[in-house]
Amino acid sequence: MREQPIFIVSDGSGVTAETICHTLLSQFPAGNFNQESLPFVDSLEKVNTAVARVNQASLDFGVKPLVFTTFVEEEYAVALSQANAEIFDLFDPFISRMEEALGQNSSHQSGQAHGIANMTQYNRRMSAVNYAMHCDDGLHAQEYGNADVILLGVSRSGKTPTCLYLALHFGFYVANYPLTEDDFLQFKLPESILAHRDKVFGLNIEASRLHQIRSERRPSSQYASLAQCQEDVTQARNLFDRYRIGHCDSTSYSVEELGSTIKHRMGLHSELY
Amino acid sequence: MREQPIFIVSDGSGVTAETICHTLLSQFPAGNFNQESLPFVDSLEKVNTAVARVNQASLDFGVKPLVFTTFVEEEYAVALSQANAEIFDLFDPFISRMEEALGQNSSHQSGQAHGIANMTQYNRRMSAVNYAMHCDDGLHAQEYGNADVILLGVSRSGKTPTCLYLALHFGFYVANYPLTEDDFLQFKLPESILAHRDKVFGLNIEASRLHQIRSERRPSSQYASLAQCQEDVTQARNLFDRYRIGHCDSTSYSVEELGSTIKHRMGLHSELY
Repeated sequence: MREQPIFIVSDGSGVTAETICHTLLSQFPAGNFNQESLPFVDSLEKVNTAVARVNQASLDFGVKPLVFTTFVEEEYAVALSQANAEIFDLFDPFISRMEEALGQNSSHQSGQAHGIANMTQYNRRMSAVNYAMHCDDGLHAQEYGNADVILLGVSRSGKTPTCLYLALHFGFYVANYPLTEDDFLQFKLPESILAHRDKVFGLNIEASRLHQIRSERRPSSQYASLAQCQEDVTQARNLFDRYRIGHCDSTSYSVEELGSTIKHRMGLHSELY
Repeated sequence: MREQPIFIVSDGSGVTAETICHTLLSQFPAGNFNQESLPFVDSLEKVNTAVARVNQASLDFGVKPLVFTTFVEEEYAVALSQANAEIFDLFDPFISRMEEALGQNSSHQSGQAHGIANMTQYNRRMSAVNYAMHCDDGLHAQEYGNADVILLGVSRSGKTPTCLYLALHFGFYVANYPLTEDDFLQFKLPESILAHRDKVFGLNIEASRLHQIRSERRPSSQYASLAQCQEDVTQARNLFDRYRIGHCDSTSYSVEELGSTIKHRMGLHSELY
């Protein structure tokens, strides 16, 4: 199938435009897309360079590019509209309706969403990343008092990426603790966890998927064997049941879906969203 | 100012809807928003529960809520439109124009963008997170061969969060190496870095900001002193100049902006975006 050129043109990092574009394109799984991001297009001169780039692609590919943009400067949007392309202005359909509903004019300031306009919020996210690194894999349990959530799960059940996502994206302080044979033999969680029982959430995973993940890390080990994986996930479920710990399954959920689920079920509210 | 209730209603994780909503609201800095996410609204029954929730808020706050949604199911969108609210359907203005431009029907499948529909891409992101953790802070330099980028910078210049962002968001393999006095005294980068010269990118930071960040970590230390910070950032810049290493400044850029800059300047292309 012919390649369809896609451009994402933004006056800031382009994160919002990329996210929307990615989601919209995912609705066209048969498409063969050639995607290019043009971030930090923040002067009329740069807009004109972007227009030239888009027009060149239109010639090279023999088809009109689709251009996704989030300009807040009217002048830039007008200049971009000169390109030989289908332009999708991602904010345009909403901003004026929002102005009316809120009874306020929009600020027309770029880079507000993913810049460091709000330094307090940004610092919170960075501290949360440091916390997640510091309290990864059972380390520094004495600092669980500062956690918003403590994630429990067996090795390779997806704890670390989920913690990092919740920290980086929302600024939540999330520690994680690996359930091991010690916990299973005693059929008991350590005091450091029980002292913060209300912050605990569990991750589990199907044994066959765990076997696959562990096998990539340590092929043919006892640790990666299907029998060991079955034992581990069963024991983890028993511990979650014993303490009535809310949990979900990372087998078919992405970190974004796990993050939303944890946020929702633990009643977390981010200052950032 | 009166609080304005905001709802984000999605049949998936809500990540896309939250990102757009957050960006749109950031254009109204004077607003006082009470924001609530309702993810995984994936049945007509759940839509009706969401409608009841929105209508209750309309009564509680005495003002029509704004509702941002990304339903791909027509039936759900229609049911939601019964709520006493201003509904912003974030895909609706684009999907039919895209269908026309691409000559394809959209799939109307939910959860495509932030689920694990494409397991290969998802596994790549998770491997990239593992790589970033494994090669954080100069560790495992023997694995720099697998890196897409090796970030250099002095302690606390923002390397780790930037690496994790590039890994989690785009699936890039990014290692980071802390520049220390050893490197400065020799005025030379280690062989492990020079062997991958084309993958190296630098982060720098203003001395006053570095002083502030280090002081939170180790108050009143030599390490955090303004003099030491000034020395470190000057030496780092000298090394970047010596090897003509592209670099940018984390003082006034967020991880999203640094990530976009690095991606753009290093010519990285993600399979995911």
